[in-house]
Amino acid sequence: MTDQQQTLADWLRGFERALGEPAAADWSALFADECWWRDLVAVSWTIVTLEGVDAIAHMAAAQAQAIGAHGFALDDPGLPLSDAEQGWFTFETGTARCRGHVQLAEGKARILLTAIVELIGHEEPTGARRPQGLEHRAAKGRKTWPEQRAERAAAMGTSEQPYVLVVGGGQNGLQLAARLGRLGVPTLVIDAHERAGDCWRKRYPSLHLHDPIFLDHFPYLPFPEHWPLFTPKDRMADWLEHYVEAMDIAYWGGTRCAAARYDEARGEWTVEVERDGERLTVRPKQLVLATGLSGAKYVPDLPGAERFAGRQYHSADHRGGAGMAGKRCVVIGSNNSAHDIAVDLWEHGAEVTMIQRSPTIVVRADTMSELAKHLPYANPAVPIDFADLMGAVTPYRPRLAAEKGFSDYLRQIDAPFYERLAASGFDLWHGEDETGFFMAYFRRAAGYYIDVGGSELVASGAIALARGEIAELTEDGVAMADGSMLPADLIVYATGYRPFSERIAELVSPEVAAKVGRCWGLGSGTEGDPGPWEGELRNMWKPTAQDGLWIQGGNLMQARFHSLHLALQLKARMEGLATPIYRAPPPLP
Amino acid sequence: MTDQQQTLADWLRGFERALGEPAAADWSALFADECWWRDLVAVSWTIVTLEGVDAIAHMAAAQAQAIGAHGFALDDPGLPLSDAEQGWFTFETGTARCRGHVQLAEGKARILLTAIVELIGHEEPTGARRPQGLEHRAAKGRKTWPEQRAERAAAMGTSEQPYVLVVGGGQNGLQLAARLGRLGVPTLVIDAHERAGDCWRKRYPSLHLHDPIFLDHFPYLPFPEHWPLFTPKDRMADWLEHYVEAMDIAYWGGTRCAAARYDEARGEWTVEVERDGERLTVRPKQLVLATGLSGAKYVPDLPGAERFAGRQYHSADHRGGAGMAGKRCVVIGSNNSAHDIAVDLWEHGAEVTMIQRSPTIVVRADTMSELAKHLPYANPAVPIDFADLMGAVTPYRPRLAAEKGFSDYLRQIDAPFYERLAASGFDLWHGEDETGFFMAYFRRAAGYYIDVGGSELVASGAIALARGEIAELTEDGVAMADGSMLPADLIVYATGYRPFSERIAELVSPEVAAKVGRCWGLGSGTEGDPGPWEGELRNMWKPTAQDGLWIQGGNLMQARFHSLHLALQLKARMEGLATPIYRAPPPLP
Repeated sequence: MTDQQQTLADWLRGFERALGEPAAADWSALFADECWWRDLVAVSWTIVTLEGVDAIAHMAAAQAQAIGAHGFALDDPGLPLSDAEQGWFTFETGTARCRGHVQLAEGKARILLTAIVELIGHEEPTGARRPQGLEHRAAKGRKTWPEQRAERAAAMGTSEQPYVLVVGGGQNGLQLAARLGRLGVPTLVIDAHERAGDCWRKRYPSLHLHDPIFLDHFPYLPFPEHWPLFTPKDRMADWLEHYVEAMDIAYWGGTRCAAARYDEARGEWTVEVERDGERLTVRPKQLVLATGLSGAKYVPDLPGAERFAGRQYHSADHRGGAGMAGKRCVVIGSNNSAHDIAVDLWEHGAEVTMIQRSPTIVVRADTMSELAKHLPYANPAVPIDFADLMGAVTPYRPRLAAEKGFSDYLRQIDAPFYERLAASGFDLWHGEDETGFFMAYFRRAAGYYIDVGGSELVASGAIALARGEIAELTEDGVAMADGSMLPADLIVYATGYRPFSERIAELVSPEVAAKVGRCWGLGSGTEGDPGPWEGELRNMWKPTAQDGLWIQGGNLMQARFHSLHLALQLKARMEGLATPIYRAPPPLP
Repeated sequence: MTDQQQTLADWLRGFERALGEPAAADWSALFADECWWRDLVAVSWTIVTLEGVDAIAHMAAAQAQAIGAHGFALDDPGLPLSDAEQGWFTFETGTARCRGHVQLAEGKARILLTAIVELIGHEEPTGARRPQGLEHRAAKGRKTWPEQRAERAAAMGTSEQPYVLVVGGGQNGLQLAARLGRLGVPTLVIDAHERAGDCWRKRYPSLHLHDPIFLDHFPYLPFPEHWPLFTPKDRMADWLEHYVEAMDIAYWGGTRCAAARYDEARGEWTVEVERDGERLTVRPKQLVLATGLSGAKYVPDLPGAERFAGRQYHSADHRGGAGMAGKRCVVIGSNNSAHDIAVDLWEHGAEVTMIQRSPTIVVRADTMSELAKHLPYANPAVPIDFADLMGAVTPYRPRLAAEKGFSDYLRQIDAPFYERLAASGFDLWHGEDETGFFMAYFRRAAGYYIDVGGSELVASGAIALARGEIAELTEDGVAMADGSMLPADLIVYATGYRPFSERIAELVSPEVAAKVGRCWGLGSGTEGDPGPWEGELRNMWKPTAQDGLWIQGGNLMQARFHSLHLALQLKARMEGLATPIYRAPPPLP
């Protein structure tokens, strides 16, 4: 062992010893004054970041005995993020194989990550564990694979109840279902759209993924190496449809979830669904909402809206600008959807005005994807699961400074772009603490535009810009508070969505929605993300205040990474493994 | 450098020096008396195995200057098949990056493999070379991806001519087309079946791949890790269909190739095709036949066949045994198709008799797939392309002894199975030189049964066995030469196919068919594989005697591995690179 590894090994031995006797341990000898322990379902059976020595000592005291973490061992020192002061390690708990990373400062841990990898005795049947699938023996009445598949499909949700019902068959629901399938958890996915992939297919024609492809891979079935960097939405749609087939996912399209009630005594949901017009009851033990983190469409209640003679619809209902040549279109809003729709209308020859009502974070997709090429994801030598883990090392709080630095860097390298855009009158923003795009995403998943060409149209005036509040709609268009008038044939409300918790209220009950509380956001106390500080995304991929209710969501990276954590939590419950959840003490007033 | 590597490095330097001055070199100082140099398109621009020092010196003299091989360097000594006497190396030619393997005996090469990997300056656009696919800029009239795809599909073969026309859209045609697509070679695949995958979909219901899945991966898009070992034919069919989409292959289903004429002066084919009843002319520079290595169905001309009152059809027309319960079925033949169909009929309740007319090689699928788990393919640490290369190291001639040993080993470990089968009267065979299954495959791709359950039915008498010649058919069944009578409601001719060269004769001309000669087979001088010895599969994946005519075929491993070699030959021609083909001198009389 090199000297470099010796320091890390010593720390790890000390940490393992302290976990063995948490009450007697000197935690401040192990952790620096400023320190974080981020745990992904390994020790806490939830997703939590503990801040400071006291919080860490509290979790250790609460969890260590029940979890039984042991066998800590340094991992390959050739891995990325390995040097004299940081390194990867592996360990086991009573139920799981886990991985971790520690970053030392003067021999004490500043950042510690622990993460579940797989359940012992419930590993995925891959490689040498792969099933044979066929007995090489003749037998009368043997079923063919299509017959077996058809029987399984007919049984699931009718004669056989799923252990997990996933509402929502987009990338989040399907990736979770794929993982559950591999773990042998009977799972049914329902989606209101007819065909898998329709959630992409039915959106406006010019849509592409914003993230380069190497960030977007699905578990088990990576995109082909030759596909271009940016995936068009129809290709994404077809990929989802293929994924359902390839991963053997039980999928009901054209199915709406009407109501769900939880029977605490039986630990079971009664879920009313409408499938192709027929009313059915499904009785899963676990219910996962994977419908996206939005509630219903939000349309502001503008005076005079009923008088407006043209068409008006919410951005979600925009199906493309075909036929709008020469029409006067007003897009209310200045975030992603507003820009994308304004561009689409302009490309189809419309006269477009965008109404900006509040300052907006803008980042250039070209810059972001160029910089993304330096991420571990772009390095074929780094397995994607490991790149995900690398990205999870730094908790949100210490990440703030890095995000401010990154935002400053973007402002600097794209200064001519920002200057030109500002000169057009566009109200640029970088977040109230100037932490920029990524923190805005984590805090409220809104308030920004990832520029794929719209900003140049705004800067050049090809898309007209109006700023300020709307006074009312008239028969002919939009009357602004400053007295100006925007004549319109079409008004598009790119005004966002109601809170997600309203969906829970509708589907389950207002009481359960209130108990679960906000979903997404860190509790940063910034606009749209009220405190208290939570340090992790609220209610995502982890136990909620309602037994048996789970939320799976986020972008493609989060979908892939955290579907593993949620799948393992669900599998552990199905197998009756102990899953003692750590509940942090309430924050000090 | 270790001593181990020094010997190999010395040999490699000597070899490079000898190639620099082939006439002056002492080749017998470099190569052992018994030696082989197998070249896969690296030095010979064909696929050839040279046997003995003289043959090697001849190729070196003929090719070395034009090819310009240089920069020989030992590869990672940690690779498989690396020790004191063998190792991998890389080198370049004037046009290509190549890889090789050498096995020394007392400092001289006994076996040398050289293989093309990629063309310099024409590398596949993967990883960092991946196209962006989308400009982040608004533009009026911008086409969406489905629109672009539809335009490309409409143009190919009509307003735009393919450089390569591939006849046959099974796994061979599609894998080749995928590679060509990645290399930027305009390619069109035509297939008589309506839907991609129908070549599998339309076969009898119980069919599964015989090879375990880890041998069967397609280029660029490996099967998911959790799929069972043995792929059912409908899943394979769906996979082919998905492959066409994912790999952006221009594919015309429902299209028959009627005739093809080569214009030597223009270096172009005129190919008449019928697409959905419409007659079209396609003008590719290169024509690839990927229709399987069989000619038309072969049905022996049995006296009285016209009198037989029941149904009779060729094995290729068997669509499953449904409805045959209680029927008397006679299957003529004892190879794979005969067994599979006999089993299928038995599973559906028929009374089945198999007529064995000649001895048959039988290997157990369970044994084969168990042993396959020791192949590099089953090791996730070995990339599949490298496993393919490992399998190519040993040429066919030195492989004979190993194959006899393997066949003997199978006979030993499955002795109770073979004894029980022989006791039933089944006429077992192991090849005229006892080299068993694999050599039978390479020599004539016939004469064997891979037992997936049929042998037990034969051994137990559940499938009745008749042996010997057929005298005639009667109204009621089959009259055997020994005077016995087999009453029948159905006769299935599992009697194989006409030679593939007849397809060339039909499609192009008898003259071209005669010029090209036999396809497949090594020239071993054994039954069905007449000499002269060629040492490689005849006309496969390499230049034929007809300019612009190529043959792509073989099992899934060969399809994957050799489609690379054929694709690179075609790409080199499209780019106008020098491709001097080595023509070995005719064998001594």
